[in-house]
Amino acid sequence: MMPTRKSIPTERAMTVAGIMSGTSADGIDVALVRIAPGAHGPKIKLLAHHAVPFGKQLRAAVLASMDAKSISTAELARLNWHLGIAYTAALLKTLLKYPGKIDLIGCHGQTIYHQATPALHAGKRFACTWQVGEMATLAAEIGVPVISNFRPADMVAGGQGAPLVSLLDFVMFRHRTRGRVLQNLGGIGNLTAIPPDASLTDIIAFDTGPANMVVDALTSKLFDKTYDRGGAIAASGKVLPTVLQASMRNPFFRRQPPKSAGREQFGANFADSFLEQCNAAGGHSEDALATATALTAYSIAGAYDRFVKPLMKNAPADFFVSGGGAHNKTLIKMLQDLLMPFGCKVADTGSVGLPTQAKEAVAFALLAYETWHRRPGNVPSATGAGRPAILGDITYA
Amino acid sequence: MMPTRKSIPTERAMTVAGIMSGTSADGIDVALVRIAPGAHGPKIKLLAHHAVPFGKQLRAAVLASMDAKSISTAELARLNWHLGIAYTAALLKTLLKYPGKIDLIGCHGQTIYHQATPALHAGKRFACTWQVGEMATLAAEIGVPVISNFRPADMVAGGQGAPLVSLLDFVMFRHRTRGRVLQNLGGIGNLTAIPPDASLTDIIAFDTGPANMVVDALTSKLFDKTYDRGGAIAASGKVLPTVLQASMRNPFFRRQPPKSAGREQFGANFADSFLEQCNAAGGHSEDALATATALTAYSIAGAYDRFVKPLMKNAPADFFVSGGGAHNKTLIKMLQDLLMPFGCKVADTGSVGLPTQAKEAVAFALLAYETWHRRPGNVPSATGAGRPAILGDITYA
Repeated sequence: MMPTRKSIPTERAMTVAGIMSGTSADGIDVALVRIAPGAHGPKIKLLAHHAVPFGKQLRAAVLASMDAKSISTAELARLNWHLGIAYTAALLKTLLKYPGKIDLIGCHGQTIYHQATPALHAGKRFACTWQVGEMATLAAEIGVPVISNFRPADMVAGGQGAPLVSLLDFVMFRHRTRGRVLQNLGGIGNLTAIPPDASLTDIIAFDTGPANMVVDALTSKLFDKTYDRGGAIAASGKVLPTVLQASMRNPFFRRQPPKSAGREQFGANFADSFLEQCNAAGGHSEDALATATALTAYSIAGAYDRFVKPLMKNAPADFFVSGGGAHNKTLIKMLQDLLMPFGCKVADTGSVGLPTQAKEAVAFALLAYETWHRRPGNVPSATGAGRPAILGDITYA
Repeated sequence: MMPTRKSIPTERAMTVAGIMSGTSADGIDVALVRIAPGAHGPKIKLLAHHAVPFGKQLRAAVLASMDAKSISTAELARLNWHLGIAYTAALLKTLLKYPGKIDLIGCHGQTIYHQATPALHAGKRFACTWQVGEMATLAAEIGVPVISNFRPADMVAGGQGAPLVSLLDFVMFRHRTRGRVLQNLGGIGNLTAIPPDASLTDIIAFDTGPANMVVDALTSKLFDKTYDRGGAIAASGKVLPTVLQASMRNPFFRRQPPKSAGREQFGANFADSFLEQCNAAGGHSEDALATATALTAYSIAGAYDRFVKPLMKNAPADFFVSGGGAHNKTLIKMLQDLLMPFGCKVADTGSVGLPTQAKEAVAFALLAYETWHRRPGNVPSATGAGRPAILGDITYA
């Protein structure tokens, strides 16, 4: 059971730095967040957000470490330590730009391995996850406690260790009379759905399928660009209905949540086969992009219709999109058109004071605040965990 | 500055489990320790000690991970998780045998990399250390907080991250009128010297040179055994004086502490050259072992004479030996003979209620207790750190 908030007498307002580096390995996002106790849970105010890119060499080392088939223990040990130095430098840069006292740090670390389904190791079968980054440097240099390594405790409780952003979604977005859907548009799309007047256990979260993954793969292959900036290329193409319909028959979309997707389902093989179908349908390159973009929009609208709408107590839902795909105007337009019949509005989280790029860093500031007050931070209905769990390790300065 | 003990009001007696797995990868030592506040620091009572060997497959995985030149990230991530499961199982087995409530756990983890001197990584130069083992399983299953990952904070403070056993040595062995020397006889020998009526800052610690490393290498090569059981082979040989004298001229022995030794100085190359000299001197295989054993004894007595005796305020010192070499009767006899002229007695730590094999596990129980009370656990004069540091990360149940 989660302890009731009032049973913790020491709760007080804190300024917390949230530090996030994601699997794209672009760099480090730092959010400075004021978190104060409130009658219905913590109240959150984003004070500042600053993105610090990784140095070129460190970025290469991070990318090379992820699920590496052959790497030395020395290299990973040094990377673990180096990341701690890099998080420290990123926070110091942020504090130079936005000076002020901080009380606590929540640092996600760098995921270099995540295996949500059990596999055999030396005679034992288990799922596992690994976020690295030595926190002793950060704690010593900044002089405040650091909380890190948030995911394992959820996994030990039977969860997938993700998503951990759900508590923030709940705290910042729940509404008395409207449903709220937080739709992240990264490589994979995932949503968190909050029914009107929800309690924490009413939240659901799951992956909706590919968001940018297929679009990016085709943009790279057909146009030699890393992504379809603003959705401009897709806007100049036509959706190929037969390919879209065939792709929407992928069993993943019908599977009951919770569920998670990855490169296994929607990676290079999927993109190649998708492109073949587009070619067979007589589509141009632009049409393939338009169709891939439509696949993202239809899969999200389909997920809403199938799995989310039934929970919304007949209230309309507001969609808040985040992630790189939030900048894809063609995708957002398609999504709006598909969701309008359901009475849903689409906006991005920036419209409520939470810039897309800051969101995860803010989430880990909140999780640090919860752990500091010995409260669980996972949302079992979102991660699939069997119970709430206090997340992470505390490193004192 | 270290906070004064009386500034921490919450200190209370606790039963702490200390969990240690060393670089020999034999298995896991668990110590159950009662620690109570005292006027001159914590009072320690060992309640139980239990050694749980690693399973064969896990042991192979641990050995393969250490400083591996080529390993997959998946393998290390799974090993990290698996170790957490193994620590949990070892503690549960211990608690089955010695039932009782515990309040806190201190777990060293498994060192898979330790680099005390700075090296370059992706454009930055730093020393680093890595103890793995995910603690979320242990905290959740046992239901009490776990403190782990003790070494990095000392290293961030400028220390070598080792030895961390010095605080225990100080707490358990300091004496008003006698000097105390804790001599560990592992692969490498290291000593902690505590002058009479010492304060924490009077302690020194350093590596004395090879303890079992050369003896073991020659025993393996000449007699196809892993070690010279009880020193029986060495007892049947004669020390070769010219080889002993030449070996004692190794510059390491004269170098001022703090200093650390390893396979770089006293590994296979050293053993090969040592054996050549023994052969050249006309020695038999048994003589080579006797001479290697004498090298250990002379290097320790020499270190005492040069670096320790001047600090002892003319008081006699008691030597307490621990580690595998404590069972080598020939070595202990040589050491006693060499130290007798200095008025030193030689005994093992078991004679004061601290069995050799339990010592490190007890040390990490004490360090956990110190961190729990927000007190530093490193001894800067022993590790070379520039300041005291609170050690480790806390994982809540």
